[in-house]
Amino acid sequence: MTAGEPARRRANGSGAPALEWLFHPRSIAVVGVPSGDPRGGNFLRALRALGYDQNHALYPVNPRLPRAAGLPCYPSLLACPGPVDHVISQVPAHAVPELVEHCVERGVRSLQLFTAGFSETGDAERARIEQQAVARARSAGIRVIGPNCMGLYVPDERIAFTGNPPPDAGGVFLLSQSGVHAADLIFRLGAIGMRFSKVVSYGNGADLAAHDFLDYAADDPQTTVVGAYIEGVPDGGAFARALRRCARTKPTIVLKAGTSEAGARAVRSHTASLAGSASVFEALCRQAGAQLVQSMAELRQTLIALTSSAGRVRGPRVVMLSSGGGVGVLATDALSRAGLDVPELPGGTRRELASFIPVAGTSNRNPIDAESFGGRGAGEGDAERRRGILSAVARSGVADVIVVSPGIVQGAHGSRVPWRDDAPAAAEPGEAREEARAFASDLAAAQEEAGCPVLYVGRDRIWGDLGPDLEMERALYAAGIASYGSIESAASVLRRMLDWRSRREGWPALF
Amino acid sequence: MTAGEPARRRANGSGAPALEWLFHPRSIAVVGVPSGDPRGGNFLRALRALGYDQNHALYPVNPRLPRAAGLPCYPSLLACPGPVDHVISQVPAHAVPELVEHCVERGVRSLQLFTAGFSETGDAERARIEQQAVARARSAGIRVIGPNCMGLYVPDERIAFTGNPPPDAGGVFLLSQSGVHAADLIFRLGAIGMRFSKVVSYGNGADLAAHDFLDYAADDPQTTVVGAYIEGVPDGGAFARALRRCARTKPTIVLKAGTSEAGARAVRSHTASLAGSASVFEALCRQAGAQLVQSMAELRQTLIALTSSAGRVRGPRVVMLSSGGGVGVLATDALSRAGLDVPELPGGTRRELASFIPVAGTSNRNPIDAESFGGRGAGEGDAERRRGILSAVARSGVADVIVVSPGIVQGAHGSRVPWRDDAPAAAEPGEAREEARAFASDLAAAQEEAGCPVLYVGRDRIWGDLGPDLEMERALYAAGIASYGSIESAASVLRRMLDWRSRREGWPALF
Repeated sequence: MTAGEPARRRANGSGAPALEWLFHPRSIAVVGVPSGDPRGGNFLRALRALGYDQNHALYPVNPRLPRAAGLPCYPSLLACPGPVDHVISQVPAHAVPELVEHCVERGVRSLQLFTAGFSETGDAERARIEQQAVARARSAGIRVIGPNCMGLYVPDERIAFTGNPPPDAGGVFLLSQSGVHAADLIFRLGAIGMRFSKVVSYGNGADLAAHDFLDYAADDPQTTVVGAYIEGVPDGGAFARALRRCARTKPTIVLKAGTSEAGARAVRSHTASLAGSASVFEALCRQAGAQLVQSMAELRQTLIALTSSAGRVRGPRVVMLSSGGGVGVLATDALSRAGLDVPELPGGTRRELASFIPVAGTSNRNPIDAESFGGRGAGEGDAERRRGILSAVARSGVADVIVVSPGIVQGAHGSRVPWRDDAPAAAEPGEAREEARAFASDLAAAQEEAGCPVLYVGRDRIWGDLGPDLEMERALYAAGIASYGSIESAASVLRRMLDWRSRREGWPALF
Repeated sequence: MTAGEPARRRANGSGAPALEWLFHPRSIAVVGVPSGDPRGGNFLRALRALGYDQNHALYPVNPRLPRAAGLPCYPSLLACPGPVDHVISQVPAHAVPELVEHCVERGVRSLQLFTAGFSETGDAERARIEQQAVARARSAGIRVIGPNCMGLYVPDERIAFTGNPPPDAGGVFLLSQSGVHAADLIFRLGAIGMRFSKVVSYGNGADLAAHDFLDYAADDPQTTVVGAYIEGVPDGGAFARALRRCARTKPTIVLKAGTSEAGARAVRSHTASLAGSASVFEALCRQAGAQLVQSMAELRQTLIALTSSAGRVRGPRVVMLSSGGGVGVLATDALSRAGLDVPELPGGTRRELASFIPVAGTSNRNPIDAESFGGRGAGEGDAERRRGILSAVARSGVADVIVVSPGIVQGAHGSRVPWRDDAPAAAEPGEAREEARAFASDLAAAQEEAGCPVLYVGRDRIWGDLGPDLEMERALYAAGIASYGSIESAASVLRRMLDWRSRREGWPALF
């Protein structure tokens, strides 16, 4: 959809029409585009880069500029030639009250205040201006997002707040009070191939807040998984209701910030939010059936699990395939610490593995030390051996999940080391990429044969080009296989998935 | 030193002369160099790449080859033309007994059995061969390292077991039953600039075991810090005594593997070691004043701390400087969870910071949101601002440690995104490296001014070239500043340093 009545997109009658307008504006004005940047500042640049103006009206506003980033620029919102659905404000805080009046006059439907310097400063006068501006907008039917926020990324509508996010859409809905965290999730998860339905950075949340976005996400037919970074909620009851409704229909993950005393103080300075009690919040998530996580890494890892096979793990039995005996030993310790099992393989499987694995320096019991498995300069013989090992494990019948870890640091073998200019360079990037794709395809086949998730623990690359590693992660993710940077992360994700599933027993199965 | 009597190197009378011979052999024979590899297999290649044969005799042995890797090859150890101090065995297990007889005949002082397929297979007959071969060697005064191990990396003697390790030496001594873990530590830590006195991978430890290496490290004048990866100890009493002696004189960190039941089984398959009781081992490390860690990541992080200023942290008060409000909020939560304080800054410092930090969207209380601090495309104005902020914090008087986290993912801004070939590319690598060095130099100056450690939490790069990031880490490490990949890691290292120091109260100060 590129224009028209947003309400038509709604799948059922329980959604929030106001947010349909927010996510599907027919036109946008960027008010206060900076004079100093020939590309029109962050928002205009991002919208043009993604192509919003190809199908919609886009109006830069700045009385001192005739044109901005190649578009005609208008002296005021009132001067924009067509109807304006959505306004992005880059004007300073003191100019916001007048802008709100203009929005009312022009029948604007939603206003995003990128503008900061309001209640989060701790200044009473600035807080009052925020409150009055938002109240005035609300009274005229205008919904406000922010202040102090980056706003919207809606790939299907070509709306973005930062340069070059993925141009295509997917099923993950993100809400985040922090713009940096929203961008971090878009780019990191986007890099491996995750795609988003809508992303919203809503800052202080003076009007639209977490419960509004959860309500929307619950009904949004494009959204399959919901992730949230929340510093505080203005209305605990509304939040609890919205979270429950959303988490019953879609996997919903919440990262709550400000759980410590010092963190709560930081939250007040950041988005003027009241962090509230950490234990109350935890109980609330538990009762709602949502997953509460503690760090951005856990949020990312859980989102990856829920959009890959890892989210479907059904039991604690891990078959661990590694390269290097010590790697398998530590992996087994880490899995055990997370309460997972690493059961011995049946005799038949071990006999089958013995034909692929030499007796010296390796093991076929579980963990399996498959020596240079998926490793350096593998030829076709190595690839056949790898497929044989994977197939034997897939048919062993004892795995709830197969974890594969080459375990050896990238750059150690082959790459040009940073302390020797004359050392031999790494394999050709093209070759390494080819090998990565072949490995990913073998793991995908093993996953199909095993009928249980395969999970990959990547090697860290410490120097050189990340291209081949990213290629591997992307190929795996495209095949539905989750990839994590350490066995500790993998173990903790699996543990949390199993716990989450058991807490939701008797409820609709979501993953 | 390149030749002569190793015993001369000994700093005092309490060392182990046998190990001086091991670490300083005047000549090496590599027996069983593979016929298929024109470069002479792993060991010959590694020794030649580092230049061992430039100052010592190096004898490849294989009856089927006239030459190996450009050196004359001998049909048997007995045929080597000069005295042989050290033998590296690449022959199969069944050929080891004969090789031991040859070693006795030739007056060899130490034998490294890369050869695997002994007791770790669980086969009684193979275990018996291992036991007999080792006993025979010992009875003739030959010390054995292995079997099932990679052996030695001694930079000053140009001895290596893997291609292209750092050619220069430093103060870190590593002992590891696993060869993969030893290599991992050498390359990962070597990449940021850490250097090693000696590294030893000793596999099954049938003769030389952890206590021998700890005894040596305790007395080795070149060694300042000791790290150990241990799967099992054959003699608990000897190990306890050696660990106590070593840990009283040098910071000593132990990663114990096989702490879980399944992990202990994996340990038996890997190095035929008995993992023993995890709680007994923990008590033993505690009593000895050593630091026990649980993962390779923790081992690496602790080694970095102890060879940088982070190891000198004296109290729990953290001043947190980040770019992006949400980053600071989560960092504060993570630091608080680790039991560290994030105290409010004094009014004077806050007023000073206010001149550098705009009121909108940032905070100067602690955490400090210094917006695009150390960030993207910083010009000279930005650098001046950065130095002003750092200096104000350095003089605040409330920091036991200053943690700096740009917080924003690399690749998000500037780099060519993996989903758009036509997107603008990253800044020139040269430019990014220059900026990294300038940032590192500012942090080093701040550390000097503050008189307390500065610690850096890096951005993850998710695509593109790791060069500039590695340059940054190297510049920081060279200036004595530790760098970690996440705030959680940084917080946990600081917590463990403080706990370790308090447990050692009343003992000699080591860090």
